[in-house]
Formats: sequence, structure tokens, C-alpha cells
Amino acid sequence: MGVLRLGYVHVRVTDMEAAKRHYINTMGFYPMLEVGNKLYLKGWDEFDHHSIVLEEGGVGVAKVGFKVAKPDDIDVIESKSRTFGVETQRMTKGDNPDVSDGLRITLPSGHIVEVYHDQTYVGSLVGTVNPQLFPRELVGIGAPRIDHALLGCDDVNTTEKFFIDVFDFYQVERLIPDLDHQDCSLATWLSSGNRGHDIALIQGENYDKKLHHLAFQLEGWSDILKAGQIMSIDDVPIDMGPTQHGITRGKTIYYFDPSGNRNEVFADGYVAQRDRPTMLWTADQVARGINAINRTLNETFTTALT
Amino acid sequence: MGVLRLGYVHVRVTDMEAAKRHYINTMGFYPMLEVGNKLYLKGWDEFDHHSIVLEEGGVGVAKVGFKVAKPDDIDVIESKSRTFGVETQRMTKGDNPDVSDGLRITLPSGHIVEVYHDQTYVGSLVGTVNPQLFPRELVGIGAPRIDHALLGCDDVNTTEKFFIDVFDFYQVERLIPDLDHQDCSLATWLSSGNRGHDIALIQGENYDKKLHHLAFQLEGWSDILKAGQIMSIDDVPIDMGPTQHGITRGKTIYYFDPSGNRNEVFADGYVAQRDRPTMLWTADQVARGINAINRTLNETFTTALT
Amino acid sequence: MGVLRLGYVHVRVTDMEAAKRHYINTMGFYPMLEVGNKLYLKGWDEFDHHSIVLEEGGVGVAKVGFKVAKPDDIDVIESKSRTFGVETQRMTKGDNPDVSDGLRITLPSGHIVEVYHDQTYVGSLVGTVNPQLFPRELVGIGAPRIDHALLGCDDVNTTEKFFIDVFDFYQVERLIPDLDHQDCSLATWLSSGNRGHDIALIQGENYDKKLHHLAFQLEGWSDILKAGQIMSIDDVPIDMGPTQHGITRGKTIYYFDPSGNRNEVFADGYVAQRDRPTMLWTADQVARGINAINRTLNETFTTALT
Amino acid sequence: MGVLRLGYVHVRVTDMEAAKRHYINTMGFYPMLEVGNKLYLKGWDEFDHHSIVLEEGGVGVAKVGFKVAKPDDIDVIESKSRTFGVETQRMTKGDNPDVSDGLRITLPSGHIVEVYHDQTYVGSLVGTVNPQLFPRELVGIGAPRIDHALLGCDDVNTTEKFFIDVFDFYQVERLIPDLDHQDCSLATWLSSGNRGHDIALIQGENYDKKLHHLAFQLEGWSDILKAGQIMSIDDVPIDMGPTQHGITRGKTIYYFDPSGNRNEVFADGYVAQRDRPTMLWTADQVARGINAINRTLNETFTTALT
Repeated sequence: MGVLRLGYVHVRVTDMEAAKRHYINTMGFYPMLEVGNKLYLKGWDEFDHHSIVLEEGGVGVAKVGFKVAKPDDIDVIESKSRTFGVETQRMTKGDNPDVSDGLRITLPSGHIVEVYHDQTYVGSLVGTVNPQLFPRELVGIGAPRIDHALLGCDDVNTTEKFFIDVFDFYQVERLIPDLDHQDCSLATWLSSGNRGHDIALIQGENYDKKLHHLAFQLEGWSDILKAGQIMSIDDVPIDMGPTQHGITRGKTIYYFDPSGNRNEVFADGYVAQRDRPTMLWTADQVARGINAINRTLNETFTTALT
Repeated sequence: MGVLRLGYVHVRVTDMEAAKRHYINTMGFYPMLEVGNKLYLKGWDEFDHHSIVLEEGGVGVAKVGFKVAKPDDIDVIESKSRTFGVETQRMTKGDNPDVSDGLRITLPSGHIVEVYHDQTYVGSLVGTVNPQLFPRELVGIGAPRIDHALLGCDDVNTTEKFFIDVFDFYQVERLIPDLDHQDCSLATWLSSGNRGHDIALIQGENYDKKLHHLAFQLEGWSDILKAGQIMSIDDVPIDMGPTQHGITRGKTIYYFDPSGNRNEVFADGYVAQRDRPTMLWTADQVARGINAINRTLNETFTTALT
Repeated sequence: MGVLRLGYVHVRVTDMEAAKRHYINTMGFYPMLEVGNKLYLKGWDEFDHHSIVLEEGGVGVAKVGFKVAKPDDIDVIESKSRTFGVETQRMTKGDNPDVSDGLRITLPSGHIVEVYHDQTYVGSLVGTVNPQLFPRELVGIGAPRIDHALLGCDDVNTTEKFFIDVFDFYQVERLIPDLDHQDCSLATWLSSGNRGHDIALIQGENYDKKLHHLAFQLEGWSDILKAGQIMSIDDVPIDMGPTQHGITRGKTIYYFDPSGNRNEVFADGYVAQRDRPTMLWTADQVARGINAINRTLNETFTTALT
Repeated sequence: MGVLRLGYVHVRVTDMEAAKRHYINTMGFYPMLEVGNKLYLKGWDEFDHHSIVLEEGGVGVAKVGFKVAKPDDIDVIESKSRTFGVETQRMTKGDNPDVSDGLRITLPSGHIVEVYHDQTYVGSLVGTVNPQLFPRELVGIGAPRIDHALLGCDDVNTTEKFFIDVFDFYQVERLIPDLDHQDCSLATWLSSGNRGHDIALIQGENYDKKLHHLAFQLEGWSDILKAGQIMSIDDVPIDMGPTQHGITRGKTIYYFDPSGNRNEVFADGYVAQRDRPTMLWTADQVARGINAINRTLNETFTTALT
């Protein structure tokens, strides 16, 4: 089966109290555990123990975790990682609270990726028998789940190859310089299943180890607006949107958490398929790819990475 | 009864062929009559002969028309106009094709306003007996009707007073310098009925006679997105949005017609009431008033008038 | 100016505790005052003291109130009422808490209508200076305001004539037996301004004094669904919908309060205009008029009046 | 990799001309090929040659096709099918126009299932380089793709087991008699990836070989309404909706094609995951599972199979 999905993201925040107000009160994530400088959270529609971990100290992404279907998948990924030539390290159950043993990999881009086969099952407030549509009392935006992350790379192509070769991800969409250089990815959107992306990569100078954004899924264009309204009331800085991406066709708002990490609320987008042709975007059309409605790009899009 | 609503707007366009493609193919208005350098159009849900008139030559607003309930209202407005001290002139049936006789007024801001009591009744394609929800074949955005116009003024207060004293409009929302200067309108949103605005005014240097934007009504946030999608495909330049105004709470996209006139698709907003308190916006909060979601203002907002 | 709008509705409920849970916790109305067997409530976007009054004991509508623009309008309506030939009675400030003096009229249909020129101004939680889009913490459905009521009549035509002659309402849409009997209204939708209806009337045997439904306004199709989802969780019985009316084009859910009074959440609909032609529906098309999407009518529609 | 998705459904129709009007003009599918009594269609966002095949003569489902990732998957499924004990037969490239060779299986429920690894690639009108959001000119509802089918079974459990054992599908949701009989499926929703269901099964007397419904995907609640509006204008009979399912949380309208086959437009629903706990619905709550908003079930739901 292999990799199921992006399971968790550890995000560094400069001020834990401000981060709590944002991620809990504004975004509506549930705090599950606080240990040392780390706060573990989950969305209401997630059933594993946590998907977002706030780590006080600095900004950016500390590490990301991918869940695989079964313990054997860890071995396969370890073996393929060695063949690919990245550094790996076994991780022990308990290295991360409520997460099984697994593998820790350093990507060519310098990001730390963990692979695990189990998390403590927590379930959601609607239960599994005759469930209501959602919990009656959601807080703020009430985001149901983590969706994807866009990581920075000095060189996208090598890290992209890692995800394809080792994780068996496929390319949903790609940004290329022009049609004469189709072998070169300036950015790539990679999926393990039917979502538009589990992970995406974007290239830039000194982008290695950096986070472009972390995205949470919402349900549809109306919920994107509701999120924007709550952000307005709670004074959350907006980077872009509401708008629709040309790439993935997702509806979106980019915004910043109190530490300056870019986050995204993301909804819809077409059903990705492994046999669907990869969409290609040439660099001259990148603005429409990111912001299909107004077809311009904020300067911050390429500068504000953490 | 008095003034019913904004009935028509004459917009100057530099290139009639480009304007036709935009207003007919992209916006979905119906061409009703073409005479000389003028094209008369209507929205699908309007029943009078026309609401938008394109005049080839230049840019900006040539004149706006307000419909009153009955012929006597013309006399009342003529009398009040004289008392107020603006220049008026009787207009004859046929001065505007398919429009009754009425009154032509020069506003303190220099804009030409016409008042009329009748237009040729045309109806809509769904008829008046057991109507379908909308005509089966709409073109492009398929905008149903004109909504309002925002006019520029060197001094908003005098022209605002005209609309209140002579047209019996009331103030729905107002932009003021600060709470110590509540008697001074920097911008004002004026209504005759339950819509958030039939006409609005904004102050700036050399704004007299100018058009800030002309707005068309759509039905809700989803239709705002659909409009933005069509604008993307048809390469219509976007100025702002999709977003929601703090002022009126309308959902919106500002965009430019091929001549550079700012237009707006506008949806929702609260039900305005004559006895509802006027909302006040202080100048330091104007960005949130215009763009409630991202709370920033394009530079073009105050510079791109035609 | 005359009648501004439907201002309040007194609804009889069999069980005040159940009614409170419904109107406050599910619908999100604010309790403003409780005196004797009466509870006064308002929606978050209303500025007058109350719009819904629950009266313990029985079911149906005890009375409805219409707000006029100024005290003189009361005199005009009193005079016209006498000419029309309905029974009137002066009401004193304080007859209804926080409501001015006015006039009480017994409609030909037996319903009690009150006319008043003032209510205690309360305002809303977003205030009138640089207001947020809505209060951050709304309860349940969070309905912003009352919209309209549909009253039963043994004979619609006389009561319709009252609203036209005395209140100066106009006919937005009408249900007629067939095109050969256009002078006979089986149901009528009447407006004072730009809303699709302030009051509507429907004819049936022993319908006099009865309530078909009381409607609250929501903003758009997405909020109609959200309301339906909350009703599902809170186990509110649905009568019809979500769907769209052919008549007024409003989006709707009909549902029952715990006492069996039909209520409606209502959104959108076209902009009504005094000079817009009245839409006619023939009796054979009534199902599409009420439920444009599935074009069938529940049996309860004509039987469940309170 | 195994089974990617439901790839095509052959639907029997009594009248090809009426079916064409419905599937092409109302639903907006593209006719790709007509041979003998068969018409091959695709949705605008599908890239393989066809997904819906209309076969003149009778009603119901003639056969369904599932696409697998690679030719080897055919062999695996053939082998597993024999182990499971269902009848299989090799099919040749060209048995179905534009479809590769593969395997034909007779399900325990009597339905014919075909498995194939390739179809002629056709692509969509937006292309694969810098694509627009959708083709500028869509017809009617403009449905982008097929979503799933719900098949009838005299005994769900055996056919469910087939899809789990042979196709490696997993259970997203299940209807059971009660919590004391959790091993018995009265209905089941089965997925191969992250969609709520590729195939679903429902049990009833003489349900074998029958079709409950065939579903097409739309994007969100607003497009569900737009579909309902077009169905109203085009006089398509509605069976249920617009509403939201409790099961899968999809938004939906059930309707009938001109031959009486139930179809569905389906949108949203949560992201299904192989490790997500299967939701259980007890028979007493089935009405809420199917129609979460009004929590009642049409009689037709269990009787109108074709």
C-alpha cells in the first residue's frame, strides 16, 4: 500500500501563547497534549492523535510525518531511501508521543521527514455509529483536517525524484521554465492518492529546509469565505485570496500565523488520479496558476518563506 | 413614492467592438438597440428597455438615469432641485430612445443625472406567467441587473445633500475622517429603498464628473466566483477580489472593462432600512471597509477613476 | 413614507421551555425580555428591541406588527382603515413593552395587526462604527432577522385589498386559479419595499386567523444548508427543503418549531420593485411555484396551519 | 496498484433520442462515438475516451468497468477471482471500442463487471498546458465526471466480500441491522482510494443485477442547486434532494433519466482513508444516513430500482 498521506507537520512558532490563540481559537484545532515546548493538535475530522505540532522557538517547519499503511512499508521505504542515497535513521515508538516506531529521513532539500505506521487512535466527537454531520460546537473556523505542505528547495528536481522513487508519489501538476525544458521542475505537486497534493515543492535561492506554507482543508468556497470573515474579526494577516488556484483548481486563502508562517485554507480541487496526465505550467503563466482569478502574484509569494 | 432606483448608466467606451465583446459575451447583457455611437443593453432580469448604454468616445460616465414612480414626481424633483440650487432642464420623450420625458440635472459634482417616469416595457425571457427560474441559455456571466454606481466628487457633502434633500435618499453608510468630524462625509452610500446603495459618492482631488465604478448585481458568493472564473478565461483585468466589503457587507469583484472603466459584480449585503442607523467608517479603517477580508487597499482604488 | 416592514410577530407556543431551546439555542435569537407568559427576542442584525415574541399557550399567530416611518403614518392608516371598513383601536405606548403607541387593526381574515412608529433602539453587537461583519460568537443557526409571514385566509382577496389600499403594499407575485380568472387571488405575496414579501396570504377553508409560516432571513444557499445541518443535529422536524421557490426565487427550508408552528429560513430571491410586473402562477403550477426544484408539494403544505 | 476507479457504466435506456437529450443537453456529457445501439459519452473533466455508455433496449445497468493501473493487475484479479469463486472470462481489446483487453467477471449479485488497464486517451478541452479552469462553453449542468454506482444485491455480504478480497476495496461506511449484528451489511460503501465510494451495494428482495443509481460528480452545494435548477427547466423528475447524505456527507440530488434509471449528482463528502474507521449506520437511522437534512426516506428509495 505504501504512503497513505501527510500525517503531521511540526511547525516552529516564536510565541506559544499567540500560537495557541490562533490555532485553537481562530482555526478551531483541538489541543491534545502539551509536553515541554510542544503542543499537539488535531482537526475535528481527524481520528489519529495529532496532525499539527507547534514547537516553541523559531519559525518554519521542524519536520513532517507521513503515515504508511503497515509496518512493512517502513522497511521498503528504508531500503529504497538507501538506494536513492538519502540519510535515514530508525525512530522509536515514543520519539513522538502517540506515534509508532518508523523511519527518519533527511531529504535532499534538508527537510526532516518521518515515516510511521500508526498513531494512537482518538476518533472524533461524532463517533463512528450513526454520526452527526459535524460536532455541534466548533470553535472559530473549525478546520476539519490538515491537507498538504509546500516545502522550499534549492533544487526541486532531486527532492521530487525522492518522493516519486521512494514514496511512489505521482506528479499531479508541475511548473516548468517553458515547453522547451519540460524535464525541469520549478515546482511540483505530488500525490499518493486522489487528493491534488500531499506534498508540493517549490524552487528558489536558499529555499532548502524552508516552509512555503502548510494547508488545512475546508469544504468548499463558502467555508473559504467564512474562514476569511473569522480571520478579519480575529485580525489574522491575509497574504492572498480568497481566490482559486489554476493549479489543482483548489479554492484558497493564504494567511500568516502569529509567527509569520504562511498557512492556507484549501478547498475542492479536482479528483487527482495516477493515470491522469500531469498538468504543466510554464513560468510565464505562474501567476494564473497560483491565482487564477486575478492572475497576479504578490511579491510575498516568493519571498515570505519561513 | 419618488425615486425608485438607479435605472440606467451611460458609459463612455474607447472601442465599441471591444466593449461589445465584454458587455455582451463576457457579462451576458442583451443588446437592445444600436443607434449612432450608442448601444443600449439590459440584464436578463430587467424588464425595462435598457439599463446600460455604451457611448463610443472617451471613458467615464456620460450620465445616469433614475426612475421615479409617476410623472408628478418629476415636478416635485424639479421644484426641489431649484430650491437646492442645481441647474435643471426638462428632457423630452425620445431624447433617450424608449425613455419618457423627464428632467436633466447637473449635480454639484458636475455629473449629469436624468429623472424619468417610464421606459418601454420589454419584460424578460421567463415571462410573467409561471416563470422559470432563469432563461435556459445565458451567455458568460449572465448578470441579471444593474445595481449601483459610485461617482467621484471634489466635495462629497454637497452632492450627498442633493440626493438626501431632492431625491429623499437616506445614508446607509458613511466614511468620515474620524469620530471628531462626523459631519464630514469622505464617502457616502445612499439608498432609496432596501438595497445597500443606489448611488454612492467618494471624495478626491479632481474627482468631479468622474466614475469610480458601475456595479452589476449577482446572486451570492458562488456567482461571484463563477464571474471571476469567466473573467479569468476571457482575460478581464481584475482590480480587487473576490472579497467582501465591510461597508454594505456585499460580496464583490472590481474589474475593468476594455476601456479601463472600473466595473463591479456585487452580491448580497444586508437589507438596508430607512430607520436603520447609518454605519460610520473612520478613515483609518477604510481598507477594512472596502476589503473586509484582507484589509488592505490597492493603490488603484483611489487613482483609477475614469 | 408609510409602512417600512414587518416588525414583529407574536407566536403562540405550547411549551415555553421547549420554545426557548429552539428559538435561542437552535435559531440563535437573543432573548431581550421575559414578562409573564411572553418572551421577547431579536435577531443579531436587528436594531429594534424585538422582532419575535413567544406567548405560552396554544399555537399560531397572536398578532403581527408593522413599523411605519413616522407618527403621522398612524393617522393616515387609521383613516384609510375606517374607509376600508375594518375595525381599529388605538394602542398605547407600553401595551407592548418597548413599542410606541399606534393602531390595532382586525384584518378581514381575523388576524390582529398592530402598527407602530417606534421601538426602543437596541442596536447590534457589531455596533455602528467600523463594524465587524457579524458578532464573533453566534449561537446555532444565528439567524440575523425576521423576514416575512404567510397568513391563512378564508378569502384572500379582501385581505389583500386591505394591504394594498391601506398599507400601500404592492403585489409581487400572485397565485390564481387559471388565466381566465386573473382577478382572483388564491395566494398573494405583498411588499412595501424591495423585499419579495413583507406579508403573504394563502386561501383555504377555515384558514382565517391562522399562520402558515413565519420566516427568518439567512444569507444565501450555503447558510440554508448550514441551517439544515444544525436542524438535523438538533432534531428539528423539516417540512420541505432545502429547495428554491419558483415564487420569489427564494431559497428555503420549511420546518416546525416544537409547538408545530411552521417556520422558514429564507434567503435570496430577486429584488422586488413596485414597477416590476406581478408574476402570475396558475393553480396547476403551484407545486413548481412553491418547490421549483422537485416540483411536488407535501400534503402538509395545505393542511399544517396553526 | 490495483483498481484505480470506476471507469465506465453501461446503462440501458428505452428511448435513445430521449436519452441523448437528457445526457447530452441537460447533463452536458460529450458524445464520443455511436455504434449500433450504443452511444459512448464522457464528462468534460475526464481524459479517457468514455465513462457512460447508453445501450438502447430496456433499463438498468448492462455492465460496469473498473480501470486498473497496469496490465499485470488483470492477472492478479483473475487469479483472485478464481480463488473467490466467481465466473471470469477474458475480454479482448475492441470488445468495447477504445478499451483495452481485460477481464469480465460475473459478480455474486449477477452484475457484469469488466476490468481493463487502458482506454484511448482523449484529454479535455482545457488541455494539459496552462489549462483554463473549465471549458468556456459547457452545456446544461456540465457534469465533469462519473463518480460511483450503487448496485442492488439479494445478499450484500458476498458481493461486498468480493470487492474487498479481489479488488482490495475497503469499507468506508456500512448499514447494519443493529449493533448486535455488526457482521451483516445491509448496504456498503466501498472505495479504492480517497473518494467516499467507487461502488456501493444495497440489499433487497430481487435486487440482484439491478441498479439503484449511477452518480456524477459536481463541485459543491452551489453546483447541486444549479443542477436542480436546470432539471427544473428541463423537466427532469427529482426523486430526492437537494440534500446532504449522512453517509459520506455528500451533497446530492437523486433524479430519474427519461428511461426511469435513477441518477445522482453528488458533491463533496469527506476524504476517505483506508485507515479511517468504517462508519456504521443502524437500520433505524437509515433515513438520516440517506437524507441527513430532513431525515425521512421516499418510498421510492427502496422500490425504484432498474
